[in-house]
Amino acid sequence: MGALHAGHGALVARARRENDICAASIFVNPKQFGPGEDFESYPRTEDADLAMLRDLGSDLVLIGTNEDLYPEEFATRVELKGPLVTAAEGARRPTHFAGVTTVVAKLFGLFEPTRAYFGWKDMQQLLVIRRMVDDLSIPVEVVGCEIVREDDGVAMSSRNRYLDREARMRAPKIHEALVLAARAWQGGERRAERLRAMVREHLHGFDLEYVELRSTSSFEELQDPVGPGRILVVARMETTRLLDNYPLDSLSEGTATVHSDDVRGSTP
Amino acid sequence: MGALHAGHGALVARARRENDICAASIFVNPKQFGPGEDFESYPRTEDADLAMLRDLGSDLVLIGTNEDLYPEEFATRVELKGPLVTAAEGARRPTHFAGVTTVVAKLFGLFEPTRAYFGWKDMQQLLVIRRMVDDLSIPVEVVGCEIVREDDGVAMSSRNRYLDREARMRAPKIHEALVLAARAWQGGERRAERLRAMVREHLHGFDLEYVELRSTSSFEELQDPVGPGRILVVARMETTRLLDNYPLDSLSEGTATVHSDDVRGSTP
Repeated sequence: MGALHAGHGALVARARRENDICAASIFVNPKQFGPGEDFESYPRTEDADLAMLRDLGSDLVLIGTNEDLYPEEFATRVELKGPLVTAAEGARRPTHFAGVTTVVAKLFGLFEPTRAYFGWKDMQQLLVIRRMVDDLSIPVEVVGCEIVREDDGVAMSSRNRYLDREARMRAPKIHEALVLAARAWQGGERRAERLRAMVREHLHGFDLEYVELRSTSSFEELQDPVGPGRILVVARMETTRLLDNYPLDSLSEGTATVHSDDVRGSTP
Repeated sequence: MGALHAGHGALVARARRENDICAASIFVNPKQFGPGEDFESYPRTEDADLAMLRDLGSDLVLIGTNEDLYPEEFATRVELKGPLVTAAEGARRPTHFAGVTTVVAKLFGLFEPTRAYFGWKDMQQLLVIRRMVDDLSIPVEVVGCEIVREDDGVAMSSRNRYLDREARMRAPKIHEALVLAARAWQGGERRAERLRAMVREHLHGFDLEYVELRSTSSFEELQDPVGPGRILVVARMETTRLLDNYPLDSLSEGTATVHSDDVRGSTP
């Protein structure tokens, strides 16, 4: 959706490295925004995005208008059913994932990619897309890439720019809380309620929408004793929802090899 | 869906002629049957189907079980919205087209075909699939093939075998009625109500579900003065719904060149 930051940069850099041709799309997809969400105000930074993609060696950028992607006669929806899309983000944003799967299916039709790169930041989205790809036998490998963070640990997000100074100062505690829980898991703590409580306690004073432990394949909630997976949190700061998640174990990272050295530091 | 007849044969023969590799699928797709429809009793003639496909030179046949196509974790639906799927067949079979688009999207993912061949017999289905392909930018050319008929004019259908002797004897009147209306259009009749009435009068005594005049691109109903398009009829004979349609003009045939000589005569 543009408003690119170093997290997107890591996806492009890896795609560039692992493939002969590397393409990107910039399209603020109205179908994945609900009523009252920030479609109108979503940051649009096309010139900076194009400069960044050029620097990273992207061969092709699709910049679609709404009319390009969804002409008047457009009538198709690609939609999942069941807990994978009704849990977590799906419970708060009931039309969101249908908007994502519809546009991603179309982008896969347009690009016919061998591999497509998505971040673990939107973990549920990544698993929804993998489910769609498996279900429709779309011939693409969906590569999950580990979350890229600011120096203070805040997960990169196009929506971080909505935060005021005070909120941005508090935001690193989200990542700290997740790391605390992961360390506890690595130290042998297998009780889901204890791991979640640890996050809630560290984030005392935050407006938390949910803290959950989930499988990195099925997205099912992890039951006691909690096995490998990721711990997720959504904190609301003013009107901005900050999503973050963290692997309990190194095996639950996005990929066997995390190229965290691809991109460093702050947003461009 | 198997139970192949010479109409299917014409699709395969044409695909064989126009492509280097020719593939077919046989799968009685439960998702496109509604409650109370004939999923359980739908004819299954796998040995004969395979012999026919071999004779026609098909290189590959996918024979899927329900578990192959829809494993337990399957959660995706590809679905159209709007008049293209709520009119005509969609009004009688509200879940039908979502079942069709879901399985066809998956078959396109599995086969990655350059061209896919569908009959004008299921005209609405053909246009629904074209809409899906355009909407999702699926890189396939959807080729419409003209209806293949028995010597007495009855449109070939796997469900014709449900007809008893008396119903089968009356069935050719359906095609006759459509030809009458097409001739009247060619003779200058442009009033939709007159053209439809002509079909109803010729089919006096039949249980008609609908008689409609529709565009071969948008499937919209043709308004006075009726331009090029096709006239459709659905007649119910006992529990069997017989669908047929006919071009008002030669330009509304499935393709510029109709290879009606591909396949002749009766079902194998």
